[in-house]
Amino acid sequence: MTTLFNTVCIIGVGLMGGSLARTIKKHSLAKIIIGTSRNRDHLQEAVQLGVIDKFETDLAKAVADADLIVLATPVGASEKVLQAIKSAIKPSAIITDLGSTKQSVADAMVKVFGNVPDNAVLAHPIAGTEQSGVAASFAELYQERRVILTPVANTNTDALQKITAFWQACGAEVINMEITHHDEVLAATSHLPHVIAYAMVNTLAHMNDKQEIFNYAAGGFKDFTRIASSDPTMWLDICLANKAALLKAVKLFKDDLDKLTVAIEADDKKVIHEMFSFAKQSRDAITDADKSN
Amino acid sequence: MTTLFNTVCIIGVGLMGGSLARTIKKHSLAKIIIGTSRNRDHLQEAVQLGVIDKFETDLAKAVADADLIVLATPVGASEKVLQAIKSAIKPSAIITDLGSTKQSVADAMVKVFGNVPDNAVLAHPIAGTEQSGVAASFAELYQERRVILTPVANTNTDALQKITAFWQACGAEVINMEITHHDEVLAATSHLPHVIAYAMVNTLAHMNDKQEIFNYAAGGFKDFTRIASSDPTMWLDICLANKAALLKAVKLFKDDLDKLTVAIEADDKKVIHEMFSFAKQSRDAITDADKSN
Repeated sequence: MTTLFNTVCIIGVGLMGGSLARTIKKHSLAKIIIGTSRNRDHLQEAVQLGVIDKFETDLAKAVADADLIVLATPVGASEKVLQAIKSAIKPSAIITDLGSTKQSVADAMVKVFGNVPDNAVLAHPIAGTEQSGVAASFAELYQERRVILTPVANTNTDALQKITAFWQACGAEVINMEITHHDEVLAATSHLPHVIAYAMVNTLAHMNDKQEIFNYAAGGFKDFTRIASSDPTMWLDICLANKAALLKAVKLFKDDLDKLTVAIEADDKKVIHEMFSFAKQSRDAITDADKSN
Repeated sequence: MTTLFNTVCIIGVGLMGGSLARTIKKHSLAKIIIGTSRNRDHLQEAVQLGVIDKFETDLAKAVADADLIVLATPVGASEKVLQAIKSAIKPSAIITDLGSTKQSVADAMVKVFGNVPDNAVLAHPIAGTEQSGVAASFAELYQERRVILTPVANTNTDALQKITAFWQACGAEVINMEITHHDEVLAATSHLPHVIAYAMVNTLAHMNDKQEIFNYAAGGFKDFTRIASSDPTMWLDICLANKAALLKAVKLFKDDLDKLTVAIEADDKKVIHEMFSFAKQSRDAITDADKSN
C-alpha cells in the first residue's frame, strides 16, 4: 500500500481510534502515528501494545505536525477538542472523525471555526463492538465495513478524495451522504436499537426475581441484549447528540409496539401475523443480502 | 446410554421435534421413533433425513404403541392434538411436550382429560434457533441447555424421574418450576424480546428509505433483530398462549422506555447514565456467568 500520510494524529485512542491506528499500521498508510488523549495511562498502554508510535498529552502539540487529524473521542467532546487544537493545526492538514452522529460534530466545527473547514471530511465507519478501550482494538474492525462520509458544499475535493482513498485502503466501502440523512438513518438502525436494548435490560433487571430471570436467558435473548453492554458514557453522548432524529424514531417504534400490543390483547391473529411476517420477510432480506455479498 | 423407551412418538417433526428425534437417536434413548403430523411431505422428509424411523399420518395410530408421547406442535394446537390421541394412549405412556408456554398446554389437558394426567410431565427446553422445519434440526440443539419441567401436585413421581433422566441423557440441565412462574419468567426473557424485535423491524421497514436503511445495518443491529426472523405462526401462537404475562412485561418495558425517552428529551444525563450503566452491569453479569460455566 502507498503511504498516504506522513504523520497521523489520533485524538482518543480507544476501541475505534486504536483499531484505526492498527489498520493504518497494518496497511502502512502513514509513517508515524501519534496518539493523544486526556488519559496518560491509556496512551502508555497504546504505545506498549504497539498500537501507536508515540503519545503526547498536550493536544495542540500532538496535532502540530499532523497531515491527518482524526477525532476519535466521544462526539460530545468535539467542540472542546477542536478548541484545544485550533491554533496548532497545519493549514494543509485534513481533519476527519469517527463519530456516530454527524450534525453535532459539524455544529462543533461551526462554533470553533465559523464553518465546517474546507479540509474537514466528516466520517462515520459503521463498525464497533460492545467492547471499549484500546485493549479491545483490532486491525480488522473496519475491514469490509461501510464508511459514510458527509462532505458539505465547501469541502475540498482533494481532501475528500484522499479520505476516500484512505478508507478504501483500510478495506472499507465508502459512501457519501447528506449530514441530516445520515443522522436519520443511524437513529433508526443503531441508536434506536441501543435505547430499546438498554430500556429492556432495565425492565428485566428490576423484576423481583432478576437473578432467576437471567438464568433462563437463551441465545436469542443474549443476541438481542448484547448491545446493552455498550459503553454508557459513549451512548449517553450519542443519544443527546442525535436527540431529534432518535426521539422521532422512538415515537414510530412506540406506535408499532402499541399496534402489536393492542392486537395481542384483542386476539387479532390477522394483524399479529401480518406484522410478524412482514418483520421476518424484511429481516430475512438482510441475511440474504449478506450471503450474496 | 441406556435405552429409556421402546417406542417414542413425536407429534410435529419440525426444528424442535426433529432435533429431539436426532438427540434420541444419537444417545440411543429409544428403540423406535415414530413421527406424526398433518403434513405427509414433512414426515417423508424426516424419514429421508434419518431423523425418525417411520411415520404415520393418523395421530391415534401413531401414538398407539408409544411409551413416550412428545407434543412438538405449536402450543395452540395442543387441545386438538390431545383430543385426537386421547382414546389411543396406552395407560402406561408418559406424555410430555416442548412448548414455550406451560399454562396453555396444562389448560388444554384439563379440557381434554379433565385434569393434567398423572403421567403427563410438561417440559420446556430453553433452546431454539430462528430457523424452522425438520431440515434445520440438529442433534446438539438441547446440549448444555436448560429444560424446565412443570410438574403439578398429582404428577407421577416415576414419570417425573424418567423425564428428568431422559433430558439429562440428552445433555440438558433439568429444573423444576411452577407453571405460573415459568410463564412469567419466559414472558420476560423470551416473549417480550421477540415482540419488541418484531415491532422494531416493522418500524424500520415502514420508513420511506427502508432499502437504504437496512444497507447501513451493522452487526449490533443484526444481532438485535435476528429473532425477528423467527416463525410468525409459532410466535403468534406463543404470544396468545401467554398473553397475560406477556402484556404485563410489555407494560413494564414501555414504562422504562418512557422514562429513558423523557430523560433524553430533557438532557437529563444523570438518569440516562444510570439506566445505561445499570443495563450494562446486568448484561455483563450474564456474559460473565456464561464464561465461568
